[in-house]
Amino acid sequence: MNTRDAFRQHCRATLDGMRQEGRYREFVALEKLAGQFPLYRHHTPEGIRTVTVWSSNDYLGMGQHPAVLAAAEAAVRTHGAGAGGTRNISGTSHLHVALEAELAALHHKEAALLFTSGFVSNQATLPAVLNALPGFTVFSDAKNHASMIHGMRHSGVRRHIFRHNDLAHLEALLAAADPATPKLVAFESVYSMDGDIAPIGAICDLAERYGAMTYLDEVHAVGLYGAEGGGIAQREGLEDRIDIVEGTLAKGFGVVGGYVAGDAEIVDFVRSVAGGLIFTTSLPPAVTAAALASVRTVRTDGSRREQLAERAAALKAALDRAGLPRMPSTSHIVPVWVGEASLCRDVARRLLAEHAIYATPINYPTVARGEERLRLCATPLHTDAMIAELVTALRAVLPGTARAAA
Amino acid sequence: MNTRDAFRQHCRATLDGMRQEGRYREFVALEKLAGQFPLYRHHTPEGIRTVTVWSSNDYLGMGQHPAVLAAAEAAVRTHGAGAGGTRNISGTSHLHVALEAELAALHHKEAALLFTSGFVSNQATLPAVLNALPGFTVFSDAKNHASMIHGMRHSGVRRHIFRHNDLAHLEALLAAADPATPKLVAFESVYSMDGDIAPIGAICDLAERYGAMTYLDEVHAVGLYGAEGGGIAQREGLEDRIDIVEGTLAKGFGVVGGYVAGDAEIVDFVRSVAGGLIFTTSLPPAVTAAALASVRTVRTDGSRREQLAERAAALKAALDRAGLPRMPSTSHIVPVWVGEASLCRDVARRLLAEHAIYATPINYPTVARGEERLRLCATPLHTDAMIAELVTALRAVLPGTARAAA
Ligand SMILES: Cc1ncc(COP(=O)(O)O)c(C=O)c1O
Ligand SMILES: Cc1ncc(COP(=O)(O)O)c(C=O)c1O
Repeated sequence: MNTRDAFRQHCRATLDGMRQEGRYREFVALEKLAGQFPLYRHHTPEGIRTVTVWSSNDYLGMGQHPAVLAAAEAAVRTHGAGAGGTRNISGTSHLHVALEAELAALHHKEAALLFTSGFVSNQATLPAVLNALPGFTVFSDAKNHASMIHGMRHSGVRRHIFRHNDLAHLEALLAAADPATPKLVAFESVYSMDGDIAPIGAICDLAERYGAMTYLDEVHAVGLYGAEGGGIAQREGLEDRIDIVEGTLAKGFGVVGGYVAGDAEIVDFVRSVAGGLIFTTSLPPAVTAAALASVRTVRTDGSRREQLAERAAALKAALDRAGLPRMPSTSHIVPVWVGEASLCRDVARRLLAEHAIYATPINYPTVARGEERLRLCATPLHTDAMIAELVTALRAVLPGTARAAA
Repeated sequence: MNTRDAFRQHCRATLDGMRQEGRYREFVALEKLAGQFPLYRHHTPEGIRTVTVWSSNDYLGMGQHPAVLAAAEAAVRTHGAGAGGTRNISGTSHLHVALEAELAALHHKEAALLFTSGFVSNQATLPAVLNALPGFTVFSDAKNHASMIHGMRHSGVRRHIFRHNDLAHLEALLAAADPATPKLVAFESVYSMDGDIAPIGAICDLAERYGAMTYLDEVHAVGLYGAEGGGIAQREGLEDRIDIVEGTLAKGFGVVGGYVAGDAEIVDFVRSVAGGLIFTTSLPPAVTAAALASVRTVRTDGSRREQLAERAAALKAALDRAGLPRMPSTSHIVPVWVGEASLCRDVARRLLAEHAIYATPINYPTVARGEERLRLCATPLHTDAMIAELVTALRAVLPGTARAAA
């Protein structure tokens, strides 16, 4: 067989199929502008124009905070561009050490460990943990992120999937498992495509009852919730019941990178065995310095968190008043229901072309087929005027809604 | 069972075992200084002092090139710290588009695709390719990097491992496989722990004869070899025989990030299906801008490549003259043999403490047990004086060599 021809044929067929299903993705080239967030420059073949972005994960606008940018610039000038090595091969700096200490403090844990992204932190830590003990079994929420699924699959251990946030189902699965096997419950706090929040306390109760450890992804909550921005577990006084908390520096903190935090011994173990940590170049000085400035700022300044909550409530109220089909969310993430891939893409295309508004169409495999949606995120920097424009635009492009709210 | 107790017990035992074997890793905190590479500041509990680093992967010193730093600073000022989203969710900028075009041009391919690291590019691309056709079988060099192994394992396809750079073994495995199955040969150009180079042309001949596609990791060669720094395949006029070339922005180019390049259709397919691309925040503006400046500089300025070759030859000659046990290398990577984990660690510790020289001890699992070594990399910025100091220091700390060369 000529593999190349067969493979190219497969590539073409797959791409054609995606186009037909309306789920072929074209990445929209959006230029972020420091100081003007959430306004971006949109690059098209016809030229450049300004658009309002409603789907950024720079949830607090920290990506343009003066202290963060100053730290990044100073680090570039002082330390240069790249780290030049893996953590073990000349790529650990005093900045990595300081940032890890700061992240441990943020979560009130003994230690933290940086990875190049939140994706890699899940993907590398879960197998390190799950392969530690024979018979380890993981209980995983059905809506867990691809990076967690990747890590759990890669570990090769037995995986029980409980229905999303369903305590009864989780308990049934825990009760049915061999009491002698080691167990891990892996879940998220804020689920990023629905904006709902896990019942963390009740899940910890179940974990305790059945002798399981807990692994919590707070990627969409760190910086945003809790007295210091430690996440939902912090807000609910549950930090000490989470064995391993995982987070990102790329969303609420506005930079890039990921981490886990927990007991010193556990973190040192993960550090010593996780392939995704050891075999890759470490985060650049400017990233580490910017993230450190961001975490420090966000920890001590709660006003951004208050503004975020206020803006999210304002967005939801405006969508509701206009009769727009927003999905029930208990966080700053506010999905608007579409329910069909081609329509979803079309609605997003028209928002951008006709209303200079960018909202990402979310389709399979990020959500199930038939559950396509637009994903909106309020930030402290989205004004009342921007909300009003968004509502007008959505009513113009979402079939049925212009009349419903007229 | 109380999982937490059992797990913590396992962590402790593992860490104790590593300590006893002499392969417990302590990351040395080294502060890179723009403009002074390869001199770093070494942070210790006792204070800070200057050391010469011999194990950086910033192979050309591009991590401190003025054009690279200027591009990074300007991008921070103009665009802020983080990208704020995944490639599909508001995280693609004109800089990503421009950098992908530049990387495609570097390798004379139709298209290129950025990932957050070279690690992730291998880990995400290999399963995307291998899961495309039923029965896909991969032929993998025994010394392939952990990230490639991770990607191949994750794909779940059949894997045949050929002895390192052994053409006869590769041919025997290809000949024994079912002619009707699709095949991929996956290998590296410069192997980073030995510094040897694959017989790329002969491997491509075999691939062609048996209808296999080729996947080449040029992570330790991009920027360094070939007329434009496209790597070993470029140097040997073999670029068009490689279906997918993979590289990093973190070593020769001195920044961070990874990529693959190939035919437009293949790259678009990988873009559309690879989880490691879609489900993670994209590279920050400053990283993309710095990498773009670096690739542009390195492509047009061949003098760094000449200096690198000259310095590597000078280092090897000096080690040989001194009777030091350097391993045979045909690249800029020059390993010095130690052969025992505790000794290796001790030699590195003494180099640092007594001679202000940093060279990473490489031990299991990066190399096999009993093959421990120091990994040295010449760069254009290592002077004759630094080489002389290194030789003196190695003779002082490597048992047996002081006499051998006296
Ligand atoms: C729940 C969850 N975990 C982890 C990640 C990965 O984070 P990062 O973007 O830092 O790779 C994401 C990213 O979208 C996520 O939604
Ligand atoms: C052969 C090879 N491929 C890929 C990688 C990963 O590259 P990066 O550091 O960009 O993740 C490495 C890193 O050391 C490597 O040696």
